Amino acid sequence: MAVKIYGNPVSPPTRNVIASLYEKGVEFELVVLDLLAGAHKKPEHLKLQPFGKIPVYQDGDITLFESRAITRYIATKYEGQGTPLYGKTPTEKALVEQWVEVESQNYSPVTSALNFQLFIKKLFTGEGPDEAAVAVEVPKLNAVLDIYEARLTESKYLAGDFFSLADLSHFANTEYFVKHSGKADLITSRPHVAAWWQDISSRPSWQKTIAYCSF
Amino acid sequence: MAVKIYGNPVSPPTRNVIASLYEKGVEFELVVLDLLAGAHKKPEHLKLQPFGKIPVYQDGDITLFESRAITRYIATKYEGQGTPLYGKTPTEKALVEQWVEVESQNYSPVTSALNFQLFIKKLFTGEGPDEAAVAVEVPKLNAVLDIYEARLTESKYLAGDFFSLADLSHFANTEYFVKHSGKADLITSRPHVAAWWQDISSRPSWQKTIAYCSF
Repeated sequence: MAVKIYGNPVSPPTRNVIASLYEKGVEFELVVLDLLAGAHKKPEHLKLQPFGKIPVYQDGDITLFESRAITRYIATKYEGQGTPLYGKTPTEKALVEQWVEVESQNYSPVTSALNFQLFIKKLFTGEGPDEAAVAVEVPKLNAVLDIYEARLTESKYLAGDFFSLADLSHFANTEYFVKHSGKADLITSRPHVAAWWQDISSRPSWQKTIAYCSF
Repeated sequence: MAVKIYGNPVSPPTRNVIASLYEKGVEFELVVLDLLAGAHKKPEHLKLQPFGKIPVYQDGDITLFESRAITRYIATKYEGQGTPLYGKTPTEKALVEQWVEVESQNYSPVTSALNFQLFIKKLFTGEGPDEAAVAVEVPKLNAVLDIYEARLTESKYLAGDFFSLADLSHFANTEYFVKHSGKADLITSRPHVAAWWQDISSRPSWQKTIAYCSF
């Protein structure tokens, strides 16, 4: 049975899962859910994902949700092929997990909030940003990126001198932020963060993902 | 070198890390940071944890932060002793990761927000809850707990019929919520959630943790 993703090309976590499959050279089929029609809230989908979110991943006998759990599973199941997404030693793996959590707890909430305010809201509702919300989130993102800048001065990638799940988790939100927020300078004005983003976003896995998911 | 935790007994993530060490029978030393004096924002701590949060974990040559990355490391490094916190098969491990992510993305934000509004704020500032914020968060928690109730009707624990990191991640926030929020009925009125909490919170690891961390 081929790998199947129930998701949508515009969804950041769907995109990150696809990128992890390209890193591993795993073929997949994307079953596109019509989010505007509420396909993710219908009983058929809720059987797979009780929270009504995307993506859902099916691979052989296993059905999984939560994108970071899915990419961890892909990194483990396909350990022997493509890019080693957890590094090579237990210490490297621990640092990968640490920086995946940093993305999850610190980077994702603030970039998701800013992407919503600065362009997603406009696309879907026609409304402009809540400037008070933006004013709260921008300093938070600056604080996170200052820490990233310091970290990326010490090592080429977040978990060390190797590309990993920790970097991959940043793909989709950062792509949207840089392209559509009007605030790309938060990334590009920090030399090490800018070089890191230039490096990881040039990877064939990500270039293939955005070509596949273009909309 | 003994395992060392830089944290504080009142901190939920510090408590979860301690519980994972008790599950594994690993001795540790807790270095208590004085949060009211801002010890977690001082340069010495920022060298270990650039975000100025707790806990930080040291074990041999490795220094780690982010509690879920720490408990994953403990589950892996001490795989051969104590409770198998990832289950026993790759599929069980994948489901553990899925439900750890559910806790991280769905349960922790809402219980942390409610615990803050309903008692932590009062303890530290003397102020009562922002009732508008409470009114936003309670329906969210009800929705999450309805999904937990359905899940715990199918299996004894979140990831399956075995206690795991997925359950353990819920310890500290749930303990506070049940004891101090005044809204314990959200847990106790759901039979399977109530039985699950009764079961996991009776574990020696958690009982030892709250005894050790009593304040």
